[in-house]
Amino acid sequence: MSSWIPANAGFADAVRASFARQSMMATLSAEIVHLAPGEVDLAAPFAAQFGQQNGFWHAGAVASLADSANGYAAFTLAAAGTDVLAVEFKINLLAPAVGDRFVACGRVVRPGRTLTVCQADVFADSAAGEGAARESTRKLVATMSSTLIVRRQMVDRLTADDRSR
Amino acid sequence: MSSWIPANAGFADAVRASFARQSMMATLSAEIVHLAPGEVDLAAPFAAQFGQQNGFWHAGAVASLADSANGYAAFTLAAAGTDVLAVEFKINLLAPAVGDRFVACGRVVRPGRTLTVCQADVFADSAAGEGAARESTRKLVATMSSTLIVRRQMVDRLTADDRSR
Amino acid sequence: MSSWIPANAGFADAVRASFARQSMMATLSAEIVHLAPGEVDLAAPFAAQFGQQNGFWHAGAVASLADSANGYAAFTLAAAGTDVLAVEFKINLLAPAVGDRFVACGRVVRPGRTLTVCQADVFADSAAGEGAARESTRKLVATMSSTLIVRRQMVDRLTADDRSR
Amino acid sequence: MSSWIPANAGFADAVRASFARQSMMATLSAEIVHLAPGEVDLAAPFAAQFGQQNGFWHAGAVASLADSANGYAAFTLAAAGTDVLAVEFKINLLAPAVGDRFVACGRVVRPGRTLTVCQADVFADSAAGEGAARESTRKLVATMSSTLIVRRQMVDRLTADDRSR
Repeated sequence: MSSWIPANAGFADAVRASFARQSMMATLSAEIVHLAPGEVDLAAPFAAQFGQQNGFWHAGAVASLADSANGYAAFTLAAAGTDVLAVEFKINLLAPAVGDRFVACGRVVRPGRTLTVCQADVFADSAAGEGAARESTRKLVATMSSTLIVRRQMVDRLTADDRSR
Repeated sequence: MSSWIPANAGFADAVRASFARQSMMATLSAEIVHLAPGEVDLAAPFAAQFGQQNGFWHAGAVASLADSANGYAAFTLAAAGTDVLAVEFKINLLAPAVGDRFVACGRVVRPGRTLTVCQADVFADSAAGEGAARESTRKLVATMSSTLIVRRQMVDRLTADDRSR
Repeated sequence: MSSWIPANAGFADAVRASFARQSMMATLSAEIVHLAPGEVDLAAPFAAQFGQQNGFWHAGAVASLADSANGYAAFTLAAAGTDVLAVEFKINLLAPAVGDRFVACGRVVRPGRTLTVCQADVFADSAAGEGAARESTRKLVATMSSTLIVRRQMVDRLTADDRSR
Repeated sequence: MSSWIPANAGFADAVRASFARQSMMATLSAEIVHLAPGEVDLAAPFAAQFGQQNGFWHAGAVASLADSANGYAAFTLAAAGTDVLAVEFKINLLAPAVGDRFVACGRVVRPGRTLTVCQADVFADSAAGEGAARESTRKLVATMSSTLIVRRQMVDRLTADDRSR
């Protein structure tokens, strides 16, 4: 489906290795459920410890999942030996983040050697009913646009030179 | 310092009660360190379980703290019996989120009966040196702008009517 | 294609009447090239007086077209007698805004009685070659997400009550 | 007031020369009213041809002024021989853009060798009364955050390499 051509033949392993280092993803019990050039879907079960005042998932938890989905979508197209960091993102919260699990679908909108722009949709999946009547519903709860920077090495956000200013 | 006049004389208690219900804030070990009309500062210690691939705090953890700071800054000016929910936010990630603790300073830019706009700066505080030579440095790591909606009751994001569409 | 059901049977006339009052659209020589429930495409020819320092279209000109496309997409689903105003938007500038004409395609992502979220893509169309060999190319130059508020009457941005604060 | 140290001693001339090439600024009758390291204020008179449906300034016109203010604020700190282009911006529209003139105050939040983040406030100035009783009021109508990229030469947005993908 994706028409992007990865620069790094080992992109899938690179994504999985980096994802395994993100302790936030482990904390959220998130996993990679789809991985293709320019496309990464992450899923996490609802868990009560990431709630806001009404018990819905906190916008920051939703944003964590979407930010990583966009980051890894960008990373699928990055050259070997690089790292990808978010420069900025904006999230629109469309509906209460409540459900059995959340799925963030990150997609590359425009790749670049320096900057990549991605878009993620976050869905809440809920199951209802019993046995044969059991049905699952999916609802769009948030949408995020992100700008990501591709760096030669695994360094701090923006540039190392920037830090010395 | 703040020139905003709260509509709810019990705003401080209302903020503290709502904050205590946000399980995400407890998960981050966040606390309220400043509370005034239109102004809320939240602080959280660095903790390794909210990291990204390089060990810095994940952008979603930084965003959680800033989103709640902006939300409670807006809530200080809301009428009694209302709830405040983020409609959207945008965060610029300015420097690696690394330090001993993070402080998100949420400020109301423009209050409204329906929509309120807030701005938050997130700082990383780090201490270095020993004894009398111990010094603390503060670095700006992110800035967030948020749009929040004030609702009459504690209901889902956006409107209850919206959900029936 | 659109699955949205308009609340106002006269939505097309309402959009056209409002569009005709936007002097900025006349200044840009913009026109409505697609109009359906939840969908509005606006097109404008490249014109040299809206340039930035390199002669490309200024980001503000691109944003004008996208903001109106999103606003009118939202307006197609609004009740009769209402007005729609942008609360905020974010635009990612993906490529130089250069071409023969620009087309902004605004789409409703989530409609609401109070707030509607839209997404617009802006394309640059360019023609090359002569006669039978003439070909047109389309390039994505920007993407915008917008939050819009639906108001009962034609009033100022946000609420009239807000202004009295 | 500004604590930024410009990398280009001729920054003021560089800003004025680039500003003079932005035909959009001439179209809006905008002028530079403040110029210092990391700080640029642009002003433009209200003009009816840039209106939205209620006669207020179109959000795109407000965004044009703020985008250029942020761009030139970033440009004051850029090295000689570079160009600055907006990668993205987000604008919150806080009040109707109506008044005698608009002033966009762009400020650098964080400069970088590659990316710079700026923040702009846009005010509407209005005069009322006659003679000695004449008073001017200033109202905040919008706030914008921008990410800008500094390029070695005057080239297209993002990278020239990017375009070849």
